[in-house]
Amino acid sequence: MRKIIIGVMGPGERAREDHVRNAFELGRLIAQEGWVTLTGGRNAGVMEAASLGAKEAGGLTLGILPTRDRNLISVAVDIPIITDMGSARNNINALTSDLIIACGLGTGTASEVALALKANTPVILLTENEEGKRFFKALKPKLVFIAKEPSEAIQMAKEILSP
Amino acid sequence: MRKIIIGVMGPGERAREDHVRNAFELGRLIAQEGWVTLTGGRNAGVMEAASLGAKEAGGLTLGILPTRDRNLISVAVDIPIITDMGSARNNINALTSDLIIACGLGTGTASEVALALKANTPVILLTENEEGKRFFKALKPKLVFIAKEPSEAIQMAKEILSP
Amino acid sequence: MRKIIIGVMGPGERAREDHVRNAFELGRLIAQEGWVTLTGGRNAGVMEAASLGAKEAGGLTLGILPTRDRNLISVAVDIPIITDMGSARNNINALTSDLIIACGLGTGTASEVALALKANTPVILLTENEEGKRFFKALKPKLVFIAKEPSEAIQMAKEILSP
Amino acid sequence: MRKIIIGVMGPGERAREDHVRNAFELGRLIAQEGWVTLTGGRNAGVMEAASLGAKEAGGLTLGILPTRDRNLISVAVDIPIITDMGSARNNINALTSDLIIACGLGTGTASEVALALKANTPVILLTENEEGKRFFKALKPKLVFIAKEPSEAIQMAKEILSP
Repeated sequence: MRKIIIGVMGPGERAREDHVRNAFELGRLIAQEGWVTLTGGRNAGVMEAASLGAKEAGGLTLGILPTRDRNLISVAVDIPIITDMGSARNNINALTSDLIIACGLGTGTASEVALALKANTPVILLTENEEGKRFFKALKPKLVFIAKEPSEAIQMAKEILSP
Repeated sequence: MRKIIIGVMGPGERAREDHVRNAFELGRLIAQEGWVTLTGGRNAGVMEAASLGAKEAGGLTLGILPTRDRNLISVAVDIPIITDMGSARNNINALTSDLIIACGLGTGTASEVALALKANTPVILLTENEEGKRFFKALKPKLVFIAKEPSEAIQMAKEILSP
Repeated sequence: MRKIIIGVMGPGERAREDHVRNAFELGRLIAQEGWVTLTGGRNAGVMEAASLGAKEAGGLTLGILPTRDRNLISVAVDIPIITDMGSARNNINALTSDLIIACGLGTGTASEVALALKANTPVILLTENEEGKRFFKALKPKLVFIAKEPSEAIQMAKEILSP
Repeated sequence: MRKIIIGVMGPGERAREDHVRNAFELGRLIAQEGWVTLTGGRNAGVMEAASLGAKEAGGLTLGILPTRDRNLISVAVDIPIITDMGSARNNINALTSDLIIACGLGTGTASEVALALKANTPVILLTENEEGKRFFKALKPKLVFIAKEPSEAIQMAKEILSP
């Protein structure tokens, strides 16, 4: 009866406003499905927005933190996992999530998408980055899905994860 | 309103029966306090027993897994964090737990105790290993506590963690 | 007087023959410059070829190994660093290298390119993957360079690394 | 023809003067055997002293760095491996070394000794810490050796590592 864990990945401080809005909505919808929301755990950008959205809908939130600095943990993270291993923790995000949704495609997020695909974790891309969508879709056509908005991403996730 | 996380550390396959019994009881008591139980996540020894005890009392269980092999995850783990980083994950246990209780002192557990002390995480030792108790107590007198049984360990934990 | 470390990244077992040939030639040229060759350390594909090329030219070779299995270490690796942390070790490759040359763009290599760019490590792409070149070049225009063959990549590396 | 790697472990800033002297002498003797010296890589305490000793005798030095801060790397490290994973890198020290010599037994060093023993890496203790020697010797009698001075430790290492 293990709960499904959905990773919402995306930039911190430099996140675009539309990615932050999408992340909040994703967190809300993930929680409504009874799924756990996993993020990078910090109090910034996509990470914070997804966690806040999940809490608003009464969900459980995991944060996989890159540093030991407890001031950087989002208040919306229920369970902070302190790795203190910088971007090497991106692989934990990729391995722990049953599915990853990428809000944007900065360097950190791109590494998480690539690591997820290496680990055979499905990825849904929610981004305006056309080169990125083309690159990752060509790399692993069966594991990469492209959504236009949060509700479509969640609908896709339900189909991908259905037994 | 973040929940308190208690790490219960101890051997897997080679755990002694009394350590396994202690771990089950610790899990139960941790859950009764409303705390989260963190273990190494595998379906063996102290890890499994602590998770089972916590679930019996309705608690939440985290498992920080050393490998990607999903067959090795205890059924009593609610949230498996897949690190795939072997014993390097012991540092995540040490950093993520608000307090660690060691059931026994094998090599892996000893590394977790040492890493916890390095990170200023308090440690309660529940072991017959007299050399180990003497060594760690001398190393960090203010962070190392020695208990004789699970109920005493939990009482100590409450005092250590009270603000 | 620290030596320059060049990471040659690329697939293992599934490497294309042209990438393997390029990797061997890169190792040879890196050694001729007096630089250290860093790879993923295994006895397969691009990793092995780059190490063999470097040794043929008398260079020093580092291998950052993902597992503890010593049978998987290339004989051409002088210094095997055993991480036992799977793909999380890709971030060590990205941080330790002064510059990375990617032979091909599989999922593991793409993660190393992304992690390198996040860490501000320059990257030279030596691949036929047009989508990948377009994506990464757009992501970090000043850190991503595109070469057609090994000799051109080494020429670029000299310019990028010159003080 | 892979070179033997000896890890010299011990405290940084808080190292005792006799441990620092021992570490320098160990580095010198390791280099004279043609072995590689591995340390935590920082410019402090036992790490720096072992690296300086090894360089004085013309040896090769590896540093497994816990952070990305390049100002903290000892000038005596030939090959800095940048892990950015804090104390989780202690497991890389334990796995990569053919044998570990501990100068002192602080919390970090104790974790490295425990992780080495878990990985079946032999350990030589060079410390006045009697509780520590008793604890680790009882834990793994066949893997733990106790030396009184650097020359004795190197003599022991030669015997342990002889085929």
